[in-house]
Amino acid sequence: MSEKPLPSAAASATLLLALLAGLAQADSIRAADPLSSWNNTAPKKAIVAFVEKVTKPGGPDFVQIPERIAVFDNDGTLWSEQPIYTQFQFVMDRVKVLARTHPEWKEQEPFATALKGDLDAATALGVKGMLELTAVIHAGLTTDEFALIIKDWLATARHPTTGRPYTEMVYQPMLELLAYLRAKGFKTFIVSGGSVEFMRPWTEKVYGIPPEQVIGSTTKTKRAMRDGTPVIVRLPEIEFVDDRDGKPIGIFGHIGRRPIAAFGNSDGDLEMLQWTAAGRGARLCLYVHHTDARREWEYDRKSNVGRLDKGLDEALTRGWTIVNMKEDWKTIFHFH
Amino acid sequence: MSEKPLPSAAASATLLLALLAGLAQADSIRAADPLSSWNNTAPKKAIVAFVEKVTKPGGPDFVQIPERIAVFDNDGTLWSEQPIYTQFQFVMDRVKVLARTHPEWKEQEPFATALKGDLDAATALGVKGMLELTAVIHAGLTTDEFALIIKDWLATARHPTTGRPYTEMVYQPMLELLAYLRAKGFKTFIVSGGSVEFMRPWTEKVYGIPPEQVIGSTTKTKRAMRDGTPVIVRLPEIEFVDDRDGKPIGIFGHIGRRPIAAFGNSDGDLEMLQWTAAGRGARLCLYVHHTDARREWEYDRKSNVGRLDKGLDEALTRGWTIVNMKEDWKTIFHFH
Repeated sequence: MSEKPLPSAAASATLLLALLAGLAQADSIRAADPLSSWNNTAPKKAIVAFVEKVTKPGGPDFVQIPERIAVFDNDGTLWSEQPIYTQFQFVMDRVKVLARTHPEWKEQEPFATALKGDLDAATALGVKGMLELTAVIHAGLTTDEFALIIKDWLATARHPTTGRPYTEMVYQPMLELLAYLRAKGFKTFIVSGGSVEFMRPWTEKVYGIPPEQVIGSTTKTKRAMRDGTPVIVRLPEIEFVDDRDGKPIGIFGHIGRRPIAAFGNSDGDLEMLQWTAAGRGARLCLYVHHTDARREWEYDRKSNVGRLDKGLDEALTRGWTIVNMKEDWKTIFHFH
Repeated sequence: MSEKPLPSAAASATLLLALLAGLAQADSIRAADPLSSWNNTAPKKAIVAFVEKVTKPGGPDFVQIPERIAVFDNDGTLWSEQPIYTQFQFVMDRVKVLARTHPEWKEQEPFATALKGDLDAATALGVKGMLELTAVIHAGLTTDEFALIIKDWLATARHPTTGRPYTEMVYQPMLELLAYLRAKGFKTFIVSGGSVEFMRPWTEKVYGIPPEQVIGSTTKTKRAMRDGTPVIVRLPEIEFVDDRDGKPIGIFGHIGRRPIAAFGNSDGDLEMLQWTAAGRGARLCLYVHHTDARREWEYDRKSNVGRLDKGLDEALTRGWTIVNMKEDWKTIFHFH
């Protein structure tokens, strides 16, 4: 408000701050591309265009920060699901360990199938079959004990093809996408057919997604007292299957509002993408299409795991974004 | 690294920045007390001591930000639950509206009780009875339609004693506590026996708690298509009762980790406080004790709504923090 000349210290400070601001801006222009593992093809352009649209204050598609909800399938979307869902491998390994005190399992299904280690036969049990097996063999454990078992397994288990820990079998471009969305005010959630308890011990470290933002299939539990201390104990029964129709139900039950962006890779994600697309305003629906037999895997319409058939047709019809892994991802894993 | 004298512009800027920093610090010392509706009695001291302990970097009780989880009961802890739980009043009002096309309800229970408007008889239906009634009379609605009904009801309904909108029947000291904890890096959650769908349309505006941080009782739903659009439709069946034993189960299912602070007011919150207390490290367990017949209500061991009996004994035995509303709260409602 004053028209007097600025005192000299303040004037010098102003000058210096302006210089510093200029340097900072130049720095940010030179800053690394937040999606540097993505080639500059259509999917990256669609992602950036969507994010700029919904974050532009005053723009026709502006979305308030609390409504910037993005949901991600896990298996096949954030990490590899070949040659078998990681949780299936975990369960097979657990059956082997526990079979030492259950010799009768050699003759009983589904234990016998799990013990044989035949991936195709195990996969044929289906998501629900494998969730049931997970629930049955871990019944009676406290939730703390179960979390520890998962952490221990992940610390030593290795992917059968790459020999890497499973937590390194995550897609670098998707890690960048998660971080980019969060930097733009999005809240990122996992919505997986896998057990929520199988994911929560490691998603924060690996994806930056805290346990309370992980939605998945659940097992019934009860409260009990052990040595005078309250604990939560697992029961041998599935509570909820967070797959297909279950995904919008799980999202509504957990988040209570409709996402504006959804990312999947299989028919199991189709209802989640449809429910996201059905909301008013700008939406981003994206399918990861596994097309890279050399760097990852190549599968879609006839795969046992992560089949993308109806979803591919719908994505093509509705103009959803389809990531062709071979063409659109510069890097797939950090170790390549 | 340089030992040359600073150039004059930089020196002046440094001086000015130091001055500005000094002013900012002085400002923050003079800043309003974030818990100004609390008297300077034991509960306020316990809250501040706990928060300072767990947020002191390098201190023996330091807790990382992601682990700073605080859970709050709603009825009787964040807003008034007298003379009847607000959701009960909502359901009674809804039964009256819907009874126009259901004349048979006059003779059928529990509709007849709800229609009579007798608060004691309605309360005697219990939390589960009222949740069932909520589910039955709203079956077939989409979740979007149900949210609209709740918003419309809250916009016009008035508290029977004060004549205020229900969303003004919130405790000013608890609003301050929520804001204070969030400013200290806590994530605040509601954990209520009420229906999650009854709370989510308004908790963000009233408490600053987004829908995804509201845990409550749930109703079964299914996905369906309406006019070619996917929707979620309510079914006439309770899925989960988030009360007593259900509270730790609900917290674990939703958040996936144990809170370090829990706030309740009744025996229905006891298992939540016990489970919170059972974790390792510093914990804050607090009961709001309704002792102010003049400014709010006075009730505990023999109340039909919000009974605090076993919980009061356990709080006294274990040295949990007990808020005596009459003595410890300077203000209860913003309109007093």
